[in-house]
Amino acid sequence: MRKERTILGIDPGLANTGWGIVHQSGPRFACLAYGCVSTPSEVELSRRLAKIHEQIGAVIARYEPSCVGIETVWFGQNITAAFATGQARGAALVACAQAGLEVGEFSPKQIKLAVVGEGGAEKDQVQYMVKQLLALDDVPRPDHAADALAAAICYTTHEGFIGKEESA
Amino acid sequence: MRKERTILGIDPGLANTGWGIVHQSGPRFACLAYGCVSTPSEVELSRRLAKIHEQIGAVIARYEPSCVGIETVWFGQNITAAFATGQARGAALVACAQAGLEVGEFSPKQIKLAVVGEGGAEKDQVQYMVKQLLALDDVPRPDHAADALAAAICYTTHEGFIGKEESA
Repeated sequence: MRKERTILGIDPGLANTGWGIVHQSGPRFACLAYGCVSTPSEVELSRRLAKIHEQIGAVIARYEPSCVGIETVWFGQNITAAFATGQARGAALVACAQAGLEVGEFSPKQIKLAVVGEGGAEKDQVQYMVKQLLALDDVPRPDHAADALAAAICYTTHEGFIGKEESA
Repeated sequence: MRKERTILGIDPGLANTGWGIVHQSGPRFACLAYGCVSTPSEVELSRRLAKIHEQIGAVIARYEPSCVGIETVWFGQNITAAFATGQARGAALVACAQAGLEVGEFSPKQIKLAVVGEGGAEKDQVQYMVKQLLALDDVPRPDHAADALAAAICYTTHEGFIGKEESA
């Protein structure tokens, strides 16, 4: 029995929230779509957050993923960035919960391990492997979209999906 | 001409998001309601955020405020708390934007100045003055609700509302 599922990946950010849709059919992946929700800094904060919520909700309505992979963000010492990204992540995750998606949260290291096979991989390597694994002609742009697709690919190795198939 | 408006105050937090409703009629205030949205830590993150979004949305639908006062959070060095609170704040602000509320963001110092008249006031003083200004029998509990009412009171001194009345 071959299992299929559609996975959303999100790279949250207040200025740019990347998203990507990966369809998994057993061990094979395909990229269905990717993009980025950009919100100009001159727009009032709550409107920016509402746009992220609305557009991620529209992506979910269009592609009907069953689950979402999202990075647990590490900012070093930059508390301002953590707070801004936290707000964008909250807006995006509300849209995911409203659609009943299963959420997988992954550290940057987990995502690098899943995509490159090396937890300390460079950003360029991750983006190159996203292109290779999804058989894309080019590295997805902007970077936020590539990072979102990497989170979706990480989800494919998550929660024993392939393992369940093997034991079926 | 006497101007009236209803103001929502929010004290965002992932575990506890306080809210309060203040009705302003010229220089007079009244507290219409207050409460707290609590989400247990054992619930999955996106469901906690969706509950905050939904319940703040329900408060807005019930009391129909035109604006919201919310604190800009200062965490010292605790990046984990900033990220968690950022997510809760994002979920709450999406509900505010969806209802078309005007958003006023205030620093802790601005709120203390507005409520106590002293930017370095202690938390107890702020809560006592919330009780006095709103003619409540007791200090609102939990603290998150009192802090939310303080943010709403701060909004009453904001954006020249009283000034506009004086110049009308």
